[in-house]
Amino acid sequence: MSVFTVCEDSMTNPPAILLIRPQMGENIGAAARAMANFGLGELRLVAPRDGWPNPKASDTAGKALDVIDDAAVHATVGEALADCQFVLATTARARAMSLPVLEVREAMLELRTRAARGEKCAVMFGPERTGLENEDMVLANAVVTIPVAPEYTSLNIGQAVVVCAYEWWMSQQGNVGASSDAHNFTAPSPNPLPCGERASPVAPLSILSGLLDQLEAALDAENFWRVPEKKEVMWRNIRATLVRAGMSEQEIATWRGMVKALRGE
Amino acid sequence: MSVFTVCEDSMTNPPAILLIRPQMGENIGAAARAMANFGLGELRLVAPRDGWPNPKASDTAGKALDVIDDAAVHATVGEALADCQFVLATTARARAMSLPVLEVREAMLELRTRAARGEKCAVMFGPERTGLENEDMVLANAVVTIPVAPEYTSLNIGQAVVVCAYEWWMSQQGNVGASSDAHNFTAPSPNPLPCGERASPVAPLSILSGLLDQLEAALDAENFWRVPEKKEVMWRNIRATLVRAGMSEQEIATWRGMVKALRGE
Repeated sequence: MSVFTVCEDSMTNPPAILLIRPQMGENIGAAARAMANFGLGELRLVAPRDGWPNPKASDTAGKALDVIDDAAVHATVGEALADCQFVLATTARARAMSLPVLEVREAMLELRTRAARGEKCAVMFGPERTGLENEDMVLANAVVTIPVAPEYTSLNIGQAVVVCAYEWWMSQQGNVGASSDAHNFTAPSPNPLPCGERASPVAPLSILSGLLDQLEAALDAENFWRVPEKKEVMWRNIRATLVRAGMSEQEIATWRGMVKALRGE
Repeated sequence: MSVFTVCEDSMTNPPAILLIRPQMGENIGAAARAMANFGLGELRLVAPRDGWPNPKASDTAGKALDVIDDAAVHATVGEALADCQFVLATTARARAMSLPVLEVREAMLELRTRAARGEKCAVMFGPERTGLENEDMVLANAVVTIPVAPEYTSLNIGQAVVVCAYEWWMSQQGNVGASSDAHNFTAPSPNPLPCGERASPVAPLSILSGLLDQLEAALDAENFWRVPEKKEVMWRNIRATLVRAGMSEQEIATWRGMVKALRGE
């Protein structure tokens, strides 16, 4: 395809694209290509099925080999998102996790707003066949959906990345029917603040993980789960609540102290 | 990729997608798939390089085989566009033809307007390597461009179709992602839901208060605050976290049990 309109807008703090257990190298390449087209450069992979590097990814990446070469491979989702403060999950399982649901256009405006105030954001995609699992979703702050036709709802992962990346790019321009909304959007967010501003930024997930580990250990020690099989779902819901709250480092420190105190330590 | 949001808007008179001298069957299939995702069903081909039907197109079309099976093959661009009243060309050669240039979002809104008054519209794409030639452009009424990053401007034809088809679909919704969401967002809530869906509703504050009272009593009992003057701010922050999380009744019940367990009760 030939050259299209080139936009000179400056880019600030674009989100990372996280592919979790991607199966086909071709799709990784297609994702990288779409990323490069629309100003995204940071590709993160968790446990790609066919290992890494993958020649098939390079084959379909076009000239976007920088994105492929710079891709980071992580063993776990938690590791891949350690520095992130706001994470979007692409999934149909929104209901199961009680997460806010944003359509892709507004979702990318939300990322733009957060990026502008320095938050590290990411958008995660699950494996081609099965999509994200609930366990992957625990670290997500919101779900992003792409509106599709009811007759044919299955969206190829490469095409889903195209739409997300394109809307990211469009959100930067802040025009074409989105301008007034972009302006209005700065106040409301999945975690709106009553005063419209926020004292301290959301802590990266690596900091929150410390609280989660401490809390899990404490609950284990108290035999909170009683029936072991219940732990998975209960613990997922508890973690989801804390992720959703978008806590600052100070708040997390307070909570850590609180957990200690509750245990009489 | 799993199922995404399904929109039930009625479709009226969608534009045809015209691929002129397409080279790779895989790209024809990818285009068909994107079309089906976003409510387009009418694929027209002019002189496909590898003939027609093409098994490679079916391979990449996913379940969008209807679009492939119904594709019409034409010998010339003129024949392919014979019934069309408004034609958009995707090209970088806008200036050469003195045609109006529309960005894809506004271009699809234009098609929507024209479709609504019964005009037959089409969007044409040139061959992968060279794009549309001037001769192909003669029948175009306007040029559509897709904004891309200056660092990497080459857009794969399948991905270009994704963006055009997606914007067609979004134009149908009457800017769901923009206007109506802005409206929904005006209502302040801990977790505003543009799509109005969520597994379980946020519990009323009266229910949350039970958890907060329990937690405060527990922290008082453990002398968590140490310095009494600190309690006010600390407790406000702790409560804010939980309010922000927008918990359901079930989640609050889990948390109440957790607080008990942490105290070894």
